[in-house]
Amino acid sequence: MLKELSSQAQHLREELLDFMEENVYPNESVFEEQLKAQEDRWQVPPIMEELKVKAKAKGLWNLFLPDEEYGKGLSNYDYAHLCEIMGRSPIAPEIFNCNAPDTGNMEVLVKYGTEEQKKKWLEPLLKGEIRSVFSMTEPDVASSDATNIQSSIERDGDEYVINAKKWWSTGALDPRCQIAIVMGKTDPHAEKHKQQSMILVPFDTPGVEVKRHLPVFGYDHAPHGHAEIHYNNVRVPASNMLLGEGRGFEIAQGRLGPGRIHHCMRAIGKAERALEFLVKRANSREAFHSKLVDKGVVRAQIAESRLEIEQARLLTLHAANKIDQEGAKAARKEIAMIKIAAPRMALNVIDRAIEIFGAAGVSDDFPLAAYWADARTLRIVDGPDQVHLRDIAKLEIREQL
Amino acid sequence: MLKELSSQAQHLREELLDFMEENVYPNESVFEEQLKAQEDRWQVPPIMEELKVKAKAKGLWNLFLPDEEYGKGLSNYDYAHLCEIMGRSPIAPEIFNCNAPDTGNMEVLVKYGTEEQKKKWLEPLLKGEIRSVFSMTEPDVASSDATNIQSSIERDGDEYVINAKKWWSTGALDPRCQIAIVMGKTDPHAEKHKQQSMILVPFDTPGVEVKRHLPVFGYDHAPHGHAEIHYNNVRVPASNMLLGEGRGFEIAQGRLGPGRIHHCMRAIGKAERALEFLVKRANSREAFHSKLVDKGVVRAQIAESRLEIEQARLLTLHAANKIDQEGAKAARKEIAMIKIAAPRMALNVIDRAIEIFGAAGVSDDFPLAAYWADARTLRIVDGPDQVHLRDIAKLEIREQL
Amino acid sequence: MLKELSSQAQHLREELLDFMEENVYPNESVFEEQLKAQEDRWQVPPIMEELKVKAKAKGLWNLFLPDEEYGKGLSNYDYAHLCEIMGRSPIAPEIFNCNAPDTGNMEVLVKYGTEEQKKKWLEPLLKGEIRSVFSMTEPDVASSDATNIQSSIERDGDEYVINAKKWWSTGALDPRCQIAIVMGKTDPHAEKHKQQSMILVPFDTPGVEVKRHLPVFGYDHAPHGHAEIHYNNVRVPASNMLLGEGRGFEIAQGRLGPGRIHHCMRAIGKAERALEFLVKRANSREAFHSKLVDKGVVRAQIAESRLEIEQARLLTLHAANKIDQEGAKAARKEIAMIKIAAPRMALNVIDRAIEIFGAAGVSDDFPLAAYWADARTLRIVDGPDQVHLRDIAKLEIREQL
Amino acid sequence: MLKELSSQAQHLREELLDFMEENVYPNESVFEEQLKAQEDRWQVPPIMEELKVKAKAKGLWNLFLPDEEYGKGLSNYDYAHLCEIMGRSPIAPEIFNCNAPDTGNMEVLVKYGTEEQKKKWLEPLLKGEIRSVFSMTEPDVASSDATNIQSSIERDGDEYVINAKKWWSTGALDPRCQIAIVMGKTDPHAEKHKQQSMILVPFDTPGVEVKRHLPVFGYDHAPHGHAEIHYNNVRVPASNMLLGEGRGFEIAQGRLGPGRIHHCMRAIGKAERALEFLVKRANSREAFHSKLVDKGVVRAQIAESRLEIEQARLLTLHAANKIDQEGAKAARKEIAMIKIAAPRMALNVIDRAIEIFGAAGVSDDFPLAAYWADARTLRIVDGPDQVHLRDIAKLEIREQL
Repeated sequence: MLKELSSQAQHLREELLDFMEENVYPNESVFEEQLKAQEDRWQVPPIMEELKVKAKAKGLWNLFLPDEEYGKGLSNYDYAHLCEIMGRSPIAPEIFNCNAPDTGNMEVLVKYGTEEQKKKWLEPLLKGEIRSVFSMTEPDVASSDATNIQSSIERDGDEYVINAKKWWSTGALDPRCQIAIVMGKTDPHAEKHKQQSMILVPFDTPGVEVKRHLPVFGYDHAPHGHAEIHYNNVRVPASNMLLGEGRGFEIAQGRLGPGRIHHCMRAIGKAERALEFLVKRANSREAFHSKLVDKGVVRAQIAESRLEIEQARLLTLHAANKIDQEGAKAARKEIAMIKIAAPRMALNVIDRAIEIFGAAGVSDDFPLAAYWADARTLRIVDGPDQVHLRDIAKLEIREQL
Repeated sequence: MLKELSSQAQHLREELLDFMEENVYPNESVFEEQLKAQEDRWQVPPIMEELKVKAKAKGLWNLFLPDEEYGKGLSNYDYAHLCEIMGRSPIAPEIFNCNAPDTGNMEVLVKYGTEEQKKKWLEPLLKGEIRSVFSMTEPDVASSDATNIQSSIERDGDEYVINAKKWWSTGALDPRCQIAIVMGKTDPHAEKHKQQSMILVPFDTPGVEVKRHLPVFGYDHAPHGHAEIHYNNVRVPASNMLLGEGRGFEIAQGRLGPGRIHHCMRAIGKAERALEFLVKRANSREAFHSKLVDKGVVRAQIAESRLEIEQARLLTLHAANKIDQEGAKAARKEIAMIKIAAPRMALNVIDRAIEIFGAAGVSDDFPLAAYWADARTLRIVDGPDQVHLRDIAKLEIREQL
Repeated sequence: MLKELSSQAQHLREELLDFMEENVYPNESVFEEQLKAQEDRWQVPPIMEELKVKAKAKGLWNLFLPDEEYGKGLSNYDYAHLCEIMGRSPIAPEIFNCNAPDTGNMEVLVKYGTEEQKKKWLEPLLKGEIRSVFSMTEPDVASSDATNIQSSIERDGDEYVINAKKWWSTGALDPRCQIAIVMGKTDPHAEKHKQQSMILVPFDTPGVEVKRHLPVFGYDHAPHGHAEIHYNNVRVPASNMLLGEGRGFEIAQGRLGPGRIHHCMRAIGKAERALEFLVKRANSREAFHSKLVDKGVVRAQIAESRLEIEQARLLTLHAANKIDQEGAKAARKEIAMIKIAAPRMALNVIDRAIEIFGAAGVSDDFPLAAYWADARTLRIVDGPDQVHLRDIAKLEIREQL
Repeated sequence: MLKELSSQAQHLREELLDFMEENVYPNESVFEEQLKAQEDRWQVPPIMEELKVKAKAKGLWNLFLPDEEYGKGLSNYDYAHLCEIMGRSPIAPEIFNCNAPDTGNMEVLVKYGTEEQKKKWLEPLLKGEIRSVFSMTEPDVASSDATNIQSSIERDGDEYVINAKKWWSTGALDPRCQIAIVMGKTDPHAEKHKQQSMILVPFDTPGVEVKRHLPVFGYDHAPHGHAEIHYNNVRVPASNMLLGEGRGFEIAQGRLGPGRIHHCMRAIGKAERALEFLVKRANSREAFHSKLVDKGVVRAQIAESRLEIEQARLLTLHAANKIDQEGAKAARKEIAMIKIAAPRMALNVIDRAIEIFGAAGVSDDFPLAAYWADARTLRIVDGPDQVHLRDIAKLEIREQL
């Protein structure tokens, strides 16, 4: 490894690997079966809470939090290695209380929350008792240009009144979901990057309407799901404002870097697992007089996958390390780069695996098709590739000219 | 056009285009809503039968059948143009009784069926009263090498006894499905290409077990669906054998060419429609101070899509024409080529559209994600790309050396 | 074939194929050796004139000219097939008097030349006695945007005075080169597309300075070569103007379509020959216990090459046919498309061949590296891909919205 | 940076960067002009020796040598950073006595040479007084499978008799070239990996025949050049054997790892410089109403280039570090990976720059076309991609199954 892990991270990594083998992989099908068996797909299968208890007992809990008081205090570089491992299983991140968007929301609360906000929302989130959503994207505008965001957050006496039409609020259908962070305009006349604010909206506030569920390539992603939420004249106390009016962009920027590292490392974990599936399947099937794994074209695909994975991982670790060393602002180019590189790579690797599995690859007998849909969606989250290419080019040109 | 359509095809094309505008596109959402509203997703929404009646009345019925007695007698080249148009809508092919696998099954019955077989199965299929499945692929072997197929069809007196474990039998969950064509080994000791036979199996025969439904990238494809079917000691009269023992490969070969043309033209139709979606969306959205449609990178994607579509279409039409002129055997290389070119192109074009739509592109607000899943599956149907590349190379090398 | 060749073209095709086998391929090395042996690389090896005599005797001469009086009167579709064949050998086009830029220049003279201009320049060109250049591109501006062109052509009494700095004037170093067609501004104040004119400039006019030779990827392309030419106060009679002042764009447009077909079909010819080289080489070499041609990865490359060649050829033939049927203006999109598709394909195919040849592939023992350099250059001729993608998108959007 | 440079490397890096700015870049055109001006292209332009003196005086000499006695003792990781910088200019590596194949030959002599061999050949090489070739590849076999190598080295009393037909012996046309390391079979009956040996052959030994020069994409690479060399009954003292009979493979393996790092880092240097050229050119040209650098499609290309460069560099540095930490054997997979990743990336980046430069990009007004030819050749050196993909897959499968 170009840079060694801290001894704490090294230790956690070994614990985590063991836990995955013993508790996570064998329970993936249990989770699926419980989900299928229960009447309502929007209930959490009991195995999840059982595994959370086990993980917490092992100290494998809130690993993502760089804050030493509330979390493990790991660097982005260290945590990235753990995050990849959790990414290998769709059920893993939540088991360790390390799933999006709760991670980002918890970070925001740790950094910018008042004592009261922390007590009310951060603590139960840290314990894994409740869940949260992050309401940013809007159906009516290209949200990759965040200045397009139209929601309104208006001050009215001691309250703010929120009117917003948001979608892709992940986790909104989870029965444990109790709080939303909503982004919207407090001042449409301020300069562009001071117009937006973020505010806490308890889910049981009148006017919060979970309008409909949004599937992803046919998947419902139960029991969390993604939702369109309408905030209709929702009134919350003025003290629910985060950091201050007009500082929404600032908060968004701050959560962006680590969030990207997490997303990308999980995608890398999925790619690694897809490659394992590919190799095993190719070793177990024959066509035209030899095992698939002995065919040159299959081997070329295995090798290309390894090539792409290694490069995307190194780039992501490099970005994580740069955030640690020089801060998120200095690492903007790297943070933009991994957003393109990691999902693109994951899509390639997973697609090769699907091809080797044939029809089984597009079914739900294996997690490949679901992984692919996740990686495809990740390519869009925070804006499509073109938005990030634009940012990279801008920074590159600025440096060169 | 390099080659003109026949006047009959030209006429049908215009009728079809009108019918699509007036009856098909406006009813796509009706179909979806009826499907969602009904208690059981495995019932056919009433709008389908209504539209079938209308299409039949217009003479837009069984267009695929090259046989002049039973169908329209169009050449593959002519029908290809119509097939592309139907491919634009997921509900269209069935409306015109031109959906797989019924088309292929009807062709087989027209060409090889006895009078009795025709009366019993072909006639109701031609009328659109019943539906059928084609059971070829097996879960336990790489079926892209058809010699791997393990199912057994054993003669026992006046009957054949079928033991088979098949999957990806499309349409098996449709309540109207009444007949299966099953491929299996009648003689494991014959030379390789004489071992397999095809036989008709009425769906209500004891031992036919629709084991489970198979989703595709999370989609259930209701009300048809794809199924794993176990044929457990299923006994059918000896007269259900198609063409004769050991002639399964021959039948498979015969249905392959036209079937590929159909699949590929439908994929081209989907790609065209995805490009329309892309252009319209790009024209309606702004980001970073200009419409998406006015951005160079978006225009480049539109142009690349046009480039790919045109080439894939020309190749497919060329293959269709070659089958018409020289027969399917002479066109083997072209038939293999389109199997790679058309879905690959469709995936690229649809993926670009998804990227422009952002999160809306992976949801079910637009048919893009579903189109993509279809095209991805088409890449696997009849074997993955590598199998077809292998065939193309073999023929190419044979010609050159 | 989707559309049959005319019987004349069919006949010429057979004659041409024979001539290539008997006279062209066996003399490629003779040409190379004569070129290497002579003191000055800018002299035409004698074998060229010998082969021209033979070709003319066979009637294989000026095949490109659609004009029935001066040429064969073939359609673009018909000639395209012949052009591909000639493209297979770097020495072939000139043997049949079908090489650029003389073909384009002859077409311009046939269509727009006065009787005097025809007598003086067209006739010796048609006989293959002299050669010509086309001076359009300029070193100081991005000439892919033709409105950037800065050269000046000023009227002064009975003469025009030309001041121009041109480069990539192909054929300028050929000792037989006697005439140039130069594009430049006659009226910088006219509307954009009426500013430019084309004028005939005899090469021996005072002020015509062949400044320097321009190599292409290290190749000198002797004995024709590409040159930077400075036209310094060059005075020619006013009667040398082509078609009329301000009509330079119109002429440029007119020669564009057929010229593109020629370039692209020649690139396709090169790709076909590269694939032949690849297959033969792969059949003659062993590594790791088997012939290269028996390896799956090599076969996949052969198949991918075939796939790309067929599609690019069909698209180019379709464009040629559309020019024939509907005129160059209606075929603008297709003409832009082939400019991208054909060289891109040729580069891929040739590159695969180079890879199979290993080090021999980049040397001059085989024509592959030279073919590649030609195809790479073709990607730039008339503007880089992005310019053509831009045009395709513009037309596509106009049609769709 | 994921891992810091040693302070020595950091210091050398700064010195080197200064030297490049002050002495190398400004003299590239001087070198070219001197080469063109001299009668014989196979003489070294005087500026080269002048710059070598300056570099040596600055201590920028033999940086590549990990041996502390003979060289700087830098790790592969440290040297990689310097190597990239030198790779930016085609004349740079020799200025610092760090050019292939002399670097590899010197390493072999340091590691395996006897005192006598060192005195005679290593010392003048280290001083930059003479130059050497490495004769491995053969024209008649696919040398990427090294067991194919056919040359014979036969013991005859106190001598070895060498009969070999080698090509792509780089540097053989340099007038200072005095020694060759030749690989050939000493024992065709030994087990596969013990058949080959390496032996020192002074260039003035009777029977050493530099048969012909081999151009690369039209470039002669004077004054070094690549040659086909026939060794006809060449007799050398038995003491010229390196390491011992049958140990040729062992030596080849040993020089492989660091050599790859060097090649790849130089390719990365070229890519970086090509990107600089691209950005500057795009900033200086206009088309269609705006600067190229302000167009989205150009920016996307800049960003994609940055993405590819970063990933290839990280992978190469990771491979270098792994060789340092765990030895070349443990790093085999990484060494194979960079051989694919670095030239592939460099070709992409350089090609994009060529496209932006248009016709200027394929000429010799800029080094882009020459860089491209170098990078294309590098893809073939040590075997085509498929050979390395094969190795990567083999190691990957071994680890996974």
